[in-house]
Amino acid sequence: MHVDADDLTAFRRELHRHPEPAWCEFYTTARIVEALRARDVDELHVGPDALEESDEPRMSLPDQATRAEWKDRAVEAGADPDLLGRLDGGNTGAVAVIEQGEGPTVGLRVDIDALPITESDDEDHVPAAEGFRSENEGYMHACGHDAHATLGLGVLDAVRHSDFSGTLKVFFQPAEERVAGGGPMSRSGHLDDVDALYAVHIGLDHPTGEIVAGVGGFLAVSGFEAEFTGSSAHAGAHPEQGDNAIQAMADAISNMYAVPRHADGPTRVNAGVVEGGTASNIVAERARMECEVRGQTTDLMEYMWEKTGRVLDGAATTHDVEVERTLNSRAPSAESDEELASIVADVAEGVEGVDSIMDHDDLGGSEDATYLMNRVEQQGGRACYVGLGTDHPGGHHTSTFDVDEASLRIGVETLAGAIEALSETDA
Amino acid sequence: MHVDADDLTAFRRELHRHPEPAWCEFYTTARIVEALRARDVDELHVGPDALEESDEPRMSLPDQATRAEWKDRAVEAGADPDLLGRLDGGNTGAVAVIEQGEGPTVGLRVDIDALPITESDDEDHVPAAEGFRSENEGYMHACGHDAHATLGLGVLDAVRHSDFSGTLKVFFQPAEERVAGGGPMSRSGHLDDVDALYAVHIGLDHPTGEIVAGVGGFLAVSGFEAEFTGSSAHAGAHPEQGDNAIQAMADAISNMYAVPRHADGPTRVNAGVVEGGTASNIVAERARMECEVRGQTTDLMEYMWEKTGRVLDGAATTHDVEVERTLNSRAPSAESDEELASIVADVAEGVEGVDSIMDHDDLGGSEDATYLMNRVEQQGGRACYVGLGTDHPGGHHTSTFDVDEASLRIGVETLAGAIEALSETDA
Amino acid sequence: MHVDADDLTAFRRELHRHPEPAWCEFYTTARIVEALRARDVDELHVGPDALEESDEPRMSLPDQATRAEWKDRAVEAGADPDLLGRLDGGNTGAVAVIEQGEGPTVGLRVDIDALPITESDDEDHVPAAEGFRSENEGYMHACGHDAHATLGLGVLDAVRHSDFSGTLKVFFQPAEERVAGGGPMSRSGHLDDVDALYAVHIGLDHPTGEIVAGVGGFLAVSGFEAEFTGSSAHAGAHPEQGDNAIQAMADAISNMYAVPRHADGPTRVNAGVVEGGTASNIVAERARMECEVRGQTTDLMEYMWEKTGRVLDGAATTHDVEVERTLNSRAPSAESDEELASIVADVAEGVEGVDSIMDHDDLGGSEDATYLMNRVEQQGGRACYVGLGTDHPGGHHTSTFDVDEASLRIGVETLAGAIEALSETDA
Amino acid sequence: MHVDADDLTAFRRELHRHPEPAWCEFYTTARIVEALRARDVDELHVGPDALEESDEPRMSLPDQATRAEWKDRAVEAGADPDLLGRLDGGNTGAVAVIEQGEGPTVGLRVDIDALPITESDDEDHVPAAEGFRSENEGYMHACGHDAHATLGLGVLDAVRHSDFSGTLKVFFQPAEERVAGGGPMSRSGHLDDVDALYAVHIGLDHPTGEIVAGVGGFLAVSGFEAEFTGSSAHAGAHPEQGDNAIQAMADAISNMYAVPRHADGPTRVNAGVVEGGTASNIVAERARMECEVRGQTTDLMEYMWEKTGRVLDGAATTHDVEVERTLNSRAPSAESDEELASIVADVAEGVEGVDSIMDHDDLGGSEDATYLMNRVEQQGGRACYVGLGTDHPGGHHTSTFDVDEASLRIGVETLAGAIEALSETDA
Repeated sequence: MHVDADDLTAFRRELHRHPEPAWCEFYTTARIVEALRARDVDELHVGPDALEESDEPRMSLPDQATRAEWKDRAVEAGADPDLLGRLDGGNTGAVAVIEQGEGPTVGLRVDIDALPITESDDEDHVPAAEGFRSENEGYMHACGHDAHATLGLGVLDAVRHSDFSGTLKVFFQPAEERVAGGGPMSRSGHLDDVDALYAVHIGLDHPTGEIVAGVGGFLAVSGFEAEFTGSSAHAGAHPEQGDNAIQAMADAISNMYAVPRHADGPTRVNAGVVEGGTASNIVAERARMECEVRGQTTDLMEYMWEKTGRVLDGAATTHDVEVERTLNSRAPSAESDEELASIVADVAEGVEGVDSIMDHDDLGGSEDATYLMNRVEQQGGRACYVGLGTDHPGGHHTSTFDVDEASLRIGVETLAGAIEALSETDA
Repeated sequence: MHVDADDLTAFRRELHRHPEPAWCEFYTTARIVEALRARDVDELHVGPDALEESDEPRMSLPDQATRAEWKDRAVEAGADPDLLGRLDGGNTGAVAVIEQGEGPTVGLRVDIDALPITESDDEDHVPAAEGFRSENEGYMHACGHDAHATLGLGVLDAVRHSDFSGTLKVFFQPAEERVAGGGPMSRSGHLDDVDALYAVHIGLDHPTGEIVAGVGGFLAVSGFEAEFTGSSAHAGAHPEQGDNAIQAMADAISNMYAVPRHADGPTRVNAGVVEGGTASNIVAERARMECEVRGQTTDLMEYMWEKTGRVLDGAATTHDVEVERTLNSRAPSAESDEELASIVADVAEGVEGVDSIMDHDDLGGSEDATYLMNRVEQQGGRACYVGLGTDHPGGHHTSTFDVDEASLRIGVETLAGAIEALSETDA
Repeated sequence: MHVDADDLTAFRRELHRHPEPAWCEFYTTARIVEALRARDVDELHVGPDALEESDEPRMSLPDQATRAEWKDRAVEAGADPDLLGRLDGGNTGAVAVIEQGEGPTVGLRVDIDALPITESDDEDHVPAAEGFRSENEGYMHACGHDAHATLGLGVLDAVRHSDFSGTLKVFFQPAEERVAGGGPMSRSGHLDDVDALYAVHIGLDHPTGEIVAGVGGFLAVSGFEAEFTGSSAHAGAHPEQGDNAIQAMADAISNMYAVPRHADGPTRVNAGVVEGGTASNIVAERARMECEVRGQTTDLMEYMWEKTGRVLDGAATTHDVEVERTLNSRAPSAESDEELASIVADVAEGVEGVDSIMDHDDLGGSEDATYLMNRVEQQGGRACYVGLGTDHPGGHHTSTFDVDEASLRIGVETLAGAIEALSETDA
Repeated sequence: MHVDADDLTAFRRELHRHPEPAWCEFYTTARIVEALRARDVDELHVGPDALEESDEPRMSLPDQATRAEWKDRAVEAGADPDLLGRLDGGNTGAVAVIEQGEGPTVGLRVDIDALPITESDDEDHVPAAEGFRSENEGYMHACGHDAHATLGLGVLDAVRHSDFSGTLKVFFQPAEERVAGGGPMSRSGHLDDVDALYAVHIGLDHPTGEIVAGVGGFLAVSGFEAEFTGSSAHAGAHPEQGDNAIQAMADAISNMYAVPRHADGPTRVNAGVVEGGTASNIVAERARMECEVRGQTTDLMEYMWEKTGRVLDGAATTHDVEVERTLNSRAPSAESDEELASIVADVAEGVEGVDSIMDHDDLGGSEDATYLMNRVEQQGGRACYVGLGTDHPGGHHTSTFDVDEASLRIGVETLAGAIEALSETDA
């Protein structure tokens, strides 16, 4: 199999030096596109062409100034200004397609964004010691999406040079950390003819050499913000003239947690951030909170969404304030297809360096690969989420997270092998 | 002055033996009407003719079966069945009018209903010892309205035999204990030409010999019931199928107490009775509560009424249940006219047995004489509420309450004297 | 196999005529004991001897007057007064033991109490039509425990006449409907040497001819009452003097539903009944509610128990009232042993009239057979809950519930057959 | 009378250019002290000598870094570094004493701090147009305390040159805007022999030429912060592991507003600022709020303080978190002495430029002059708060607030006149 471990490492390190947050993956997208152009793929859909067109702003889209800043930074780092011009407004990411004769259309989804975490500069932290620590201070690839993008490119290479017969589409998805990019990419049209989709995540507390052939248990999630707007008043002189945004929010919080449990399965609710008001002696005109609801299934999440919506309306009515709810992130639930998973398990057994194969594991959290997985399944296809073990010194989303680059080759060989195997089966 | 203390005592004792609750004052009304007919008054408006006509049921009207029971009891006790036939459906009470030439139209308002309290049968309790304890077990004149009705009759007699020149109207008002009768009587039309209105209350912790020339500080009040109707469900098997009436009510209670204070003056709110649900393992379909709001002024009470209405609606929205609010009682606020009060004070000084005159006292509670007072004032007249001291062994609304019958004569002489004095002034 | 269907029917009908509520199964226990004495069993433990001794009153024990009434009724119905004398104070029920040589100790648990439901007198209702309708008006065997007790006796007879080698213990458990009798019987000592325990329930929406070989999914449950005691005050005159029991209870209700979900599995909470207060204008001195918490496991139920306890304490602190929580019912969770279940399934295949065998079903609710099941398992034994189908026209706990008596023979043959089979295996 | 209007204007403008927030009045104190030294007063108590010694940090004391910054700024502006060294740690302010023979000890209290408001640079705004706009950007004398300090100096001068016989103490109080300085100054000992105390406020919507001879209706107030500390957890993966600080705070807010009204008079409560939590998917470990309670009397404020304390404890218990309450500000209620007020009214009649004298006005808010007023009264003295009208274009606490400097002379003459008059009466 065609895999150059050094190339993988080099590409991953370059992305690692340029971490970018959701919807600002300007440099990252440009570097991926540059690499794909060098490979002469059959189709290349970039930015707006890789996503659903929408009149609404993307969920969790940073403001224009922030985006402009990141675009400038990408230009400075050497990205093509013409290309960047097409990516603004929530249009990062890319889809690459290679066609190799008759056979199934197979997809691979990888995500590409980074986190607002300051990377460790400890000498024990390999990126610091070896000179590829983040150059965007305050931001970091602390969840391995640099490795994911590298896997996408590596698998494409490996499949190109394999006996795979069919079509391969690699989805470089933006804005996963805000659970915001999966929806628009899933509705781009590019998923609609995919017969089998793999998605992959590195780490997740599995060591190098372990493959999880089928991750499931994704909780469906909606992250949202609720802003309450009332009227301020002097709390001593005229309490009755206020319409108290803080009191309304407090009421809503209590009632959100009290939404009834559901017999069909686990649900979740959280009000994780609150802020509001201006002074202790002023009835607050404004308050806002950042919340989320989850469910074992999409239906259960939607039950929580509907019920918490009622709670917000009820609190607004009670306290005579306005409330506006904004959806920040959303992902459905999903399970991995067992047949696709067993193909991965079979292939992994023959991959050098794999010493442990888990049949199944539950994520217990949420991610928006599920949008792409659901889309494929709704069109009659199948989808499977694969875990690629890697020794990682720090936990995900911490400043000392890092991946064992030896796992990159293992991941490419496993995924490319599974994709190749699919061309031989009735995918 | 024409006052026969023995007659007063005898009449009061007869009413005391026949206590009847709000809107069921059948025997009481019949006895008053009989006494008035014997006096050949100029006009006598009974039952429906003494109240506003209304398509709505009276507030706090007992059900038909209860009313029928009380009517039967009145017949048994010797009341005229023909008369009783006119009183059903919330039409008890009477207005008597005597016309004695040119002069002001003066009103006196007394109330006539009793309470659901079992009267003491202790030998220290005078009605028990002297044989005029309640014959309607479980009910009792525990607030002195038997004395009030007697004062109404006594004052009418005394004025008839005095030099008073003008018109006197005596209002025998039903359903004060439920704060329900004052509204309908105030809108009967009989108040509309009244130039000066006195209302009177016995006791209130003032001893025999004390007159309070001007009671004020009546809180406006609305008593109401709220009934929540949701959907039941098995709390273990399908909590999500329930729309929880108890949870909604609990939410509403918390928020009702949290209605903002008002800078214009005192407000009050209370949820005094709750009940709901059927079993610990069933999500409650139904819950109800009995509540009240008050305000120093009618505006302040209405502020609380509007705000608590919002709270009920908000709780219903939050918990997806229906809520219905029913007004049980209502009275506005009022203050006593200072000139009318000073006439009372002046007259009282000359009444035998009066040894203390208070200029003013605050009630601190609510009563619906205020409806009649407000009505008179809205038409350009004046109104004053008078306190008639009496030694009362037990507190109001307790099983050992009783009045010192010596105060009846004092009350008649004071009130009749003030009314007579009004014909000489420019009332 | 020794089964007399007519005897089963006659015994069931006699119990059906004499339904008795939890801890008042005086006649029922007496009739069971009489029947057991006629059979000359090896050991017979009655009332206090069948339960754990305790200084605490039994959970959900009715008051002395109620118990005395039921005892009188039992005497009138012909029960032995001497025996009844031993049963008072929460000591109903019995354990019968037969010893038939070497072999395992096998238990069968049946429950014996009835419900406070008025039985239908419709002519379509078989007990009414055939003259064995409840003679204790307002009470009814509406959950089939009359059939359960009959099964207990029938199985004992069948096993006595079979080739079973070992010891059989039949547990006639009181107070299941209040989830109160299982705990005391489980700690009686009689379970401690049981190698295999069967429990049985008739109906549960399975038709005659169906056997559920292994019921599971019992939610652990605690039913409780919370009583709040504050101080009353006049809500208009002195709101600050009240310590508001209703407000405290409302606060607690909101917070109980808001106890965090648990990742380990389903939890439940409900405040199903509330009542409190005396009048709309009085700050309530007293309020109480009937509640329950559940969990998929006993640990999860205890998590809810602890958290709701905190909520009650917090509400009491906030509103300066006292709160007292009383445990009314409790049962742990349980699952059925698969091997015992498969023995039932195997035997059932050969029983005449069985036409459907379900491997497993989830109860989704709670019952306190789980106490006995857990006790046996803690001592190293195994336990299995069996569902015995019966056509039942009305649902459980409704006035038209009835069992198809043809299922009694099926139940006896299946359970006795399984018990006999156990003596041949390594139970 | 010795009053130089130009000097008053010059001094006021200099203070206006150097606004400093509570406990950071370094330059202000230094300038006042410098002016007092030039006048050779009999006693001068500066910083710690003007306040109660305390081991506790002053309420609302800014952190060390902030204080250091303000001290540096004062040095730059020309203040004496040696003096400043004594003022740190919440020890700003001064008390000046002049002794002029036999007679009463009279006090005058003025406050000296400014607000965190950016001053208008509009050309209509006189300080901007005439070059004495704030030089401490972001801070402003937006409530007239620059004028107050000037009045203190002016009155001292005028009294020195008058026939006043007795002792005059002028209290230059720090940290009024945080309602924090009055307590420590009141307990300094310097008030304990004061027979009559005047306090003064400029503006308050009264025009130039109007004197309010007796302001009252100060609400007692306590401003506080409550910080909740629980445990964070992933809201999706392990909601049960969190102890939710935001949920606890929300619960407390709802219950604080629901503290019962009090029959003795108005009370207030407000949660004016909230913030907490880190992310929508994390159960919040920490949340805090800034609140206040008020009462018409100090007792009523303390009732609210005690009740809201219970609420915080209850919420902490319910949600298993810690809560810490910090008092930020406190002031008792007060009323003005009528005799001192009438002296002011009498004197004001003779002051040139006074064209309107109000007998009394209610503040409706809070301020901590009441601490000094109460202290004097507790020692048998009397106290009166005087309103000095001034045309002010913008409202208090707005960026366009300014005073009409013509009112400075009026204020000095009125207050010095009243003080002089006191030496002739039996103060």
